[in-house]
Amino acid sequence: MSQQFGPEYVRAIAPYQAGKPIAEVAREFGLDEANIVKLASNENPFGVPESSQQAMAAAVADLGRYPDANGFDLKAALSKRYEVPADWITLGNGSNDILEIAAHAFVQKGQAVVYSQYSFAVYALATQGVGARAIVVPAREYGHDLDAMAAAIDADTRLVFIANPNNPTGTFIPAAQIEAFLNKVPAGVVVVLDEAYNEFLAPEQQFESSQWARKYPNLLVSRTFSKAYGLAGLRVGFAIAQPALTDLMNRIRQPFNVNSLAQAAAIAALNDKPFLEQGARNNAAGYAQFVEAFEELGLQYVPSFGNFVLVKVGDDDGAGARVNLALLKQGVIVRPVGNYGLPQWLRISIGLPAENAIFIAALKKALA
Amino acid sequence: MSQQFGPEYVRAIAPYQAGKPIAEVAREFGLDEANIVKLASNENPFGVPESSQQAMAAAVADLGRYPDANGFDLKAALSKRYEVPADWITLGNGSNDILEIAAHAFVQKGQAVVYSQYSFAVYALATQGVGARAIVVPAREYGHDLDAMAAAIDADTRLVFIANPNNPTGTFIPAAQIEAFLNKVPAGVVVVLDEAYNEFLAPEQQFESSQWARKYPNLLVSRTFSKAYGLAGLRVGFAIAQPALTDLMNRIRQPFNVNSLAQAAAIAALNDKPFLEQGARNNAAGYAQFVEAFEELGLQYVPSFGNFVLVKVGDDDGAGARVNLALLKQGVIVRPVGNYGLPQWLRISIGLPAENAIFIAALKKALA
Repeated sequence: MSQQFGPEYVRAIAPYQAGKPIAEVAREFGLDEANIVKLASNENPFGVPESSQQAMAAAVADLGRYPDANGFDLKAALSKRYEVPADWITLGNGSNDILEIAAHAFVQKGQAVVYSQYSFAVYALATQGVGARAIVVPAREYGHDLDAMAAAIDADTRLVFIANPNNPTGTFIPAAQIEAFLNKVPAGVVVVLDEAYNEFLAPEQQFESSQWARKYPNLLVSRTFSKAYGLAGLRVGFAIAQPALTDLMNRIRQPFNVNSLAQAAAIAALNDKPFLEQGARNNAAGYAQFVEAFEELGLQYVPSFGNFVLVKVGDDDGAGARVNLALLKQGVIVRPVGNYGLPQWLRISIGLPAENAIFIAALKKALA
Repeated sequence: MSQQFGPEYVRAIAPYQAGKPIAEVAREFGLDEANIVKLASNENPFGVPESSQQAMAAAVADLGRYPDANGFDLKAALSKRYEVPADWITLGNGSNDILEIAAHAFVQKGQAVVYSQYSFAVYALATQGVGARAIVVPAREYGHDLDAMAAAIDADTRLVFIANPNNPTGTFIPAAQIEAFLNKVPAGVVVVLDEAYNEFLAPEQQFESSQWARKYPNLLVSRTFSKAYGLAGLRVGFAIAQPALTDLMNRIRQPFNVNSLAQAAAIAALNDKPFLEQGARNNAAGYAQFVEAFEELGLQYVPSFGNFVLVKVGDDDGAGARVNLALLKQGVIVRPVGNYGLPQWLRISIGLPAENAIFIAALKKALA
């Protein structure tokens, strides 16, 4: 038998399943990349904003230098935008990094982490990565059951992950319910409120969760530039929390975790209102396009508050994989969610109107 | 007393001290950024290669997409260059990420990590970050004492870090000594051979350490694109090891840890021989320039195999900080190494001839 390396809890991790890249699907199915539609990773169909491209071009001359380890300029911009001091901000290599840093900073082997069934896959990976015990609370109507989550917090629990809106189901928890939950959580338990999809909420659903950090010393709000801001390929996210939490995050954070172009691009994107508004309009229209098609096809879907929709494509546990393969053969990449315990469902990201139409046509063929 | 969060070993971490960015020094000392010379972070004075800039420009259109989580194209290029299969390669957000991933993948709380006194600061941070015990082996003539390191491996040890050449001292271990060490290390102990500065070695000093990975299943070779390749601001490094180690690394690795532009730029840089040759020539000339000045000034220095030199600027423990401040006031940023236990020394990166000359003139003033 060959030598075994690493802790048992690391050997037990099942690596994250990323959406298939376009080039990989083209290779596998013998397709032309130009004809492939990818609606698999909740990416921004408009790509990186023009404002960010200009900021990046100006930053290229300095790329031989290490990034600013303290992210001075980006933190200053975020501080102004979210009305919190700069030393309440942690920068991440995407919000994935924020979630991983939080697990390493606040939880050790033998302690526990609470999160919901059907919530973002990285919560499970981050929990396993530190050898902690996962307390997975059954979902209610595909969303978080906050009462049950509060009740599930035990003496070992050091961290709770909440996704709002949730990925991959698209469910949303109103502000009042989250505040009620925060009031119930013990003071020594850190709550990570993962708001990767916050910017897709209608104005009346948004609330300044960053200001809750003033009230709750155990709250860490996580945001990303990968979705509404269109910077997924650059990797930049951030967290807002009081200095006691932020200081520990920065002890675990790799000093140069956010590259120089990402820092420059994020500052530009943060202030690019026209880009955000264009994205919101497209998202609302695409959601309506999907809903109309799913209703026409008689398919169950979960009402979504993000830039994607979870749709049930069959009643047997092979349905998701089968329809996914039929879509891939037609050059349409979506996300199967069998690894989330949802083998009858697919998650479809909202694209441009023409991309959505190609998906809908391919889905009709796949189901016929 | 306020609520305490996080494991005790996390609270005990002293965060990494990055080199001061030019903008920060300009703010602090009221200087013009254009007049500041930074020789603090072992960066490439030629910046990012032109070939990488072109590759990045071609990749901008796809930046709204997530990076390829599997790094297909970059791994293919590295596989060809280093003659190892692609599934022997782990990509990192700089080699800092590789070092951190290795600690998380192979070591848990209560186990031990061996590294040398005066070796790279991230070894200590990565060890503390997983709650492991550090076995710090006294250096011999500012370099690794491999016999003592082999003898220091105890039953709890799961990982050894070796830097070759070493940062911040610049020392080098010949191939035969490393192989002798590898032959002594128990099979269950992983050896991370950190070769961030490998490309600065003279041809006769270089050896294909990647091929050692074939012989030693417990060896992981770490490399970076931040130094000779000029991509520090983009963040990309990699590791070579057999699949048993690589597979565990990939369970801990964040799926999108290396951004899309970094992947594209690294492929271009890897094959940019003229850029590497230009850098090697400049480095050899700059080293000679420093050595001449230090000998003229009667300063002790450690003969260096990297792109930097460690020089002793005084006999009292305030010398490094004092001379560093005097240099900063003249707009020259170097690296004090008091945090390495070398308070009488400074580490100076080799820059362009004119930058080196400005530093030497400023040093003469500072010492006068």
